[in-house]
Amino acid sequence: MPVETALPPVPLTVEGASVLHQMMRFRWPAWRALPAETRAAILDEATAALTALEKPAAGCQSGMYSLLGHKGDLMFVHFRRSFEELNEAQLKLARLRISDYLEPASSYLSIIELGLYESSSDTYADLARRDIKPHSEEWNREIESVLERHRKAMAPRLWPEIPGAKYICFYPMDRQRGESRNWYQEPMPDRQRMMKEHGLIGRRYGGEVRQIITGSIGFDDWEWGVDLFAEDPLVFKKLIYEMRFDEVSAVYALFGSFYVGLRTPASGLGEILKV
Amino acid sequence: MPVETALPPVPLTVEGASVLHQMMRFRWPAWRALPAETRAAILDEATAALTALEKPAAGCQSGMYSLLGHKGDLMFVHFRRSFEELNEAQLKLARLRISDYLEPASSYLSIIELGLYESSSDTYADLARRDIKPHSEEWNREIESVLERHRKAMAPRLWPEIPGAKYICFYPMDRQRGESRNWYQEPMPDRQRMMKEHGLIGRRYGGEVRQIITGSIGFDDWEWGVDLFAEDPLVFKKLIYEMRFDEVSAVYALFGSFYVGLRTPASGLGEILKV
Amino acid sequence: MPVETALPPVPLTVEGASVLHQMMRFRWPAWRALPAETRAAILDEATAALTALEKPAAGCQSGMYSLLGHKGDLMFVHFRRSFEELNEAQLKLARLRISDYLEPASSYLSIIELGLYESSSDTYADLARRDIKPHSEEWNREIESVLERHRKAMAPRLWPEIPGAKYICFYPMDRQRGESRNWYQEPMPDRQRMMKEHGLIGRRYGGEVRQIITGSIGFDDWEWGVDLFAEDPLVFKKLIYEMRFDEVSAVYALFGSFYVGLRTPASGLGEILKV
Amino acid sequence: MPVETALPPVPLTVEGASVLHQMMRFRWPAWRALPAETRAAILDEATAALTALEKPAAGCQSGMYSLLGHKGDLMFVHFRRSFEELNEAQLKLARLRISDYLEPASSYLSIIELGLYESSSDTYADLARRDIKPHSEEWNREIESVLERHRKAMAPRLWPEIPGAKYICFYPMDRQRGESRNWYQEPMPDRQRMMKEHGLIGRRYGGEVRQIITGSIGFDDWEWGVDLFAEDPLVFKKLIYEMRFDEVSAVYALFGSFYVGLRTPASGLGEILKV
Amino acid sequence: MPVETALPPVPLTVEGASVLHQMMRFRWPAWRALPAETRAAILDEATAALTALEKPAAGCQSGMYSLLGHKGDLMFVHFRRSFEELNEAQLKLARLRISDYLEPASSYLSIIELGLYESSSDTYADLARRDIKPHSEEWNREIESVLERHRKAMAPRLWPEIPGAKYICFYPMDRQRGESRNWYQEPMPDRQRMMKEHGLIGRRYGGEVRQIITGSIGFDDWEWGVDLFAEDPLVFKKLIYEMRFDEVSAVYALFGSFYVGLRTPASGLGEILKV
Repeated sequence: MPVETALPPVPLTVEGASVLHQMMRFRWPAWRALPAETRAAILDEATAALTALEKPAAGCQSGMYSLLGHKGDLMFVHFRRSFEELNEAQLKLARLRISDYLEPASSYLSIIELGLYESSSDTYADLARRDIKPHSEEWNREIESVLERHRKAMAPRLWPEIPGAKYICFYPMDRQRGESRNWYQEPMPDRQRMMKEHGLIGRRYGGEVRQIITGSIGFDDWEWGVDLFAEDPLVFKKLIYEMRFDEVSAVYALFGSFYVGLRTPASGLGEILKV
Repeated sequence: MPVETALPPVPLTVEGASVLHQMMRFRWPAWRALPAETRAAILDEATAALTALEKPAAGCQSGMYSLLGHKGDLMFVHFRRSFEELNEAQLKLARLRISDYLEPASSYLSIIELGLYESSSDTYADLARRDIKPHSEEWNREIESVLERHRKAMAPRLWPEIPGAKYICFYPMDRQRGESRNWYQEPMPDRQRMMKEHGLIGRRYGGEVRQIITGSIGFDDWEWGVDLFAEDPLVFKKLIYEMRFDEVSAVYALFGSFYVGLRTPASGLGEILKV
Repeated sequence: MPVETALPPVPLTVEGASVLHQMMRFRWPAWRALPAETRAAILDEATAALTALEKPAAGCQSGMYSLLGHKGDLMFVHFRRSFEELNEAQLKLARLRISDYLEPASSYLSIIELGLYESSSDTYADLARRDIKPHSEEWNREIESVLERHRKAMAPRLWPEIPGAKYICFYPMDRQRGESRNWYQEPMPDRQRMMKEHGLIGRRYGGEVRQIITGSIGFDDWEWGVDLFAEDPLVFKKLIYEMRFDEVSAVYALFGSFYVGLRTPASGLGEILKV
Repeated sequence: MPVETALPPVPLTVEGASVLHQMMRFRWPAWRALPAETRAAILDEATAALTALEKPAAGCQSGMYSLLGHKGDLMFVHFRRSFEELNEAQLKLARLRISDYLEPASSYLSIIELGLYESSSDTYADLARRDIKPHSEEWNREIESVLERHRKAMAPRLWPEIPGAKYICFYPMDRQRGESRNWYQEPMPDRQRMMKEHGLIGRRYGGEVRQIITGSIGFDDWEWGVDLFAEDPLVFKKLIYEMRFDEVSAVYALFGSFYVGLRTPASGLGEILKV
Repeated sequence: MPVETALPPVPLTVEGASVLHQMMRFRWPAWRALPAETRAAILDEATAALTALEKPAAGCQSGMYSLLGHKGDLMFVHFRRSFEELNEAQLKLARLRISDYLEPASSYLSIIELGLYESSSDTYADLARRDIKPHSEEWNREIESVLERHRKAMAPRLWPEIPGAKYICFYPMDRQRGESRNWYQEPMPDRQRMMKEHGLIGRRYGGEVRQIITGSIGFDDWEWGVDLFAEDPLVFKKLIYEMRFDEVSAVYALFGSFYVGLRTPASGLGEILKV
């Protein structure tokens, strides 16, 4: 089948906020070595800056988490309108005096993404029926209008506030490209079916956990980043364990490191860092 | 078979104490460089704090181990009632002056978990016989009542004290999801049979080794953490070697790093750190 | 088939500029600790040196990027006429006082490469028709004249300026050599077909993204390095996601770390490093 | 076949000395920065302590090696009667002032182990003939008496002195548990045959190289540690290369890092560390 | 076939110089912080010592390279008559004051090795024809006399000077031991054929690149180390790319990190380190 007329295997996606996760280790010994007034002054500066950042405004917001374990002490999650704004957020944080005591341990760069498997199949089939050649000008125009419709309908999910839940769980993931089991070679209808089954599990947990999927192909070392937000962290385990048995996870999901933390308002930074 | 009516492949679990392992390297050169009185004062503070933490109280307890090898000098094991309390334990330790000499080398976040393979099969079969649709309200109510029964019956195992044995062995593990051998695609009865055979080996070692399984899916980088406690460390090798030949381990177990240490009461910290 | 008379499986390539990527972490605490005049003097020296390097001259140019995330704060991209000149560029940068505050985090050494799959097939077939024995003197002469023709025709792509786009995306990659799927054992016509399909996708993004492929077999730890340049970073994701479904990527591409940054002229260094 | 009556697949083992390898990097710059008298005093203390440790006494001995390459400058090998004594040895070394200049780079915890494949088969077959049920009290008694016999007969190999050879080669290894080739699923007779063939090669090198196998399942990150001792290091290569072609190594052996060093008596420490 | 009478699968090898590669990062900030006279004195000492080492004498020689990229600034290549002499070379370098500014980043320990596939087959076949039992005394005597013949004939290649070429490329490699494709289970004639085809490619590049193969089984973490020397580094890419398509590389070669550098005479050290 000539490549240029075959239906594209790639699902349509719409994107929203640019997202940067920053995992930082805190340099306790150096911090403790400071005179109390210096610590107070540094904390005042940091608290003021972070307080300003944590208020959602025009698609921009930063949240802070107290992490569990050695992978980091604090995690900052930045939602912005562009990568350029993320770069500014990162530099703004680096310029705070508190940053002398924050050692970057890890980070993740991604963008909020909604995958439109169902709509892709329908749209591709419809365009095929109408004999519109893939990637022709007309095709592109039609696709763009479908995407624009979704962007509008899904704006609240594409440009969300950072959920206020007590706990966060962040992890990156890939789709398997093994020698015999390769997600990217599965036919679109099979992928669509598997994603749908996967979604049904998520939906059952909808009341207890809020999920934000970000795409990171071309941005970071894994293909997607997943943020889960819940009042009870046990739900993270229950949800992910149950999903691990569905086909798309059991066979096709590869996971990176998991980061779990407690939401900490800027005003709580002093409490965390008190010596 | 429609997804929503198929019996769930995920086994039921009940959970107890939240657990954090902290592996720390000790900064001997900086420690040795301190004046003796400073060291004594720091030790006094640390010993008092750790003494308070090592007494089991209302589901909370912390134990200290002197590790063998370079992966860490001290390992702290915290049992708590929630992740929030673990976060507090971690911050409390970080605020002690001794922490200036403790470098976080690794850690593990998990929750005590009992997997109910047998009960899951029975319960799912029973509910199916009674025509109760999976994930329906009735189903959920029935499942919750089964879980609650187990939580009560197994409370001592879900909320244990840290066993007082001389040696600890901690390691994380995954179940294999290879291209041809995938635990999460094995039928429930096969998994149940393999887990049962696995358990029979463990039972034979029951008099010599105490085992605590913690679940960490969604919390840390492996799926489970295993703590073994024994008076003679040779039992760790004998038990794990024998298990390595059973099907569930030979084919489906992937292991992370192993940490072996000797239980050290808070009052013994001074002896370990004497210069 | 006797080895020496079989048609070579290796595609012809032509090479241009030698390229070094340097990813650097910035030592903020040490920088902030400097007196303002010292910082100003160091910045003046660095800005002057980098300004001289960023002007394309005789195949030599260096560009600076402000990276997103913890993998580095600044990335320098050097285009030179030889590895010796790259070595000099590297030493020149190391000798600047600003280098006391730049910690090498990663790097990549490669050379701009154009793979000539189509031309290779045609040429090999033509030489075979003319009964010219592979690797004979005549063969080598003919091949060299083909290469020379391409080098001239493709000079602008072999010796480009660093594209001025706002965003860069750099990543290294390998071709898969798995036990059952091995790029280097695929017949030349299949590889040629797959590369052509791959190229068609790239061509559709030609207006939005500029791509520079560098070869690094024998130079660095992956086989190729890819630089993408675009005004909108979302294009990186769209392009690479779409490509991930074509055969040559889905089955045969392995990816290293991704680095994303914003182009920063030398004159902008002071802004980035202001405290 | 009912699990509890099947013959066990695990071979019998007997164990001897507890062993800790400590690989250390030497902090030359800090060492060189010391006044000569301080260096001399530190060396005197270290030499005296290490001299006492290097004499074999009651199953306890420590040896020192000057390593080749960057993986460490010094390697200490401790043989002790228990893990508790290893912990003491480790703490004793950490308390020496020389330890301020020793940076732990790696380590390995294991126990001298002799695998009794032949005896296991014979014993299991004999007990089966006598209708003694696996893991019954009688079975356990019989097995223990077989082990005790071997422990006595093999005492010199279980509790050896550290061979005095000029060169050491240490490396850890695993048995393969791949999806299609899995050591732990091979029938006992096949494993026994492969181990026997493997042993025949070793025997031919018996005059030139001394081998000590330690088990580390449950203790460290690999399943076994291997120490080779020889006057000519070329023998390490010849022996391991030849073995790599026997089935048990070619298919089932996975290797960790290799450490090669020269035996250095405590009295030679001053020579190594002279500035 | 009884193991002891089967022809050995391991090819004969002869060995020459002991080789140590040392990759070092240079501590620019500390170096720059020194008074000019101190730097000059340290450089004088280092230059004199390295000048003495770079002259080939009685099988001993050390060469210095300025590396490209972040994996190291300087690489030292030592050829010696034994591992003991390599250890001395390493200690001699460590005792130079310049070593305070050299941070070991990596290293590689190996020995120059010539694999005698052709001769092995011929010799084994000849001995078999003469009914000489493998590993019998007579067999060993015959093998040793074959090896001795090769050692003499190949002495210049076993005990070479470090080639004076402008560029070096060093990398370690393994032969694949996959579950379905395993070099060590290929019959000797197949391995011999593949190695011969591999050699034919190398021979065509003989005028442009000099290759030194070192064996490191039992010495370091890969099985072989490869040093390529050329005036034009592009040849490294062309040679290795072409080889990657031959069977022995495409299927059976696994590669470690690549190090590329420019030869720097001891007298050039001052130029490199000028501030």
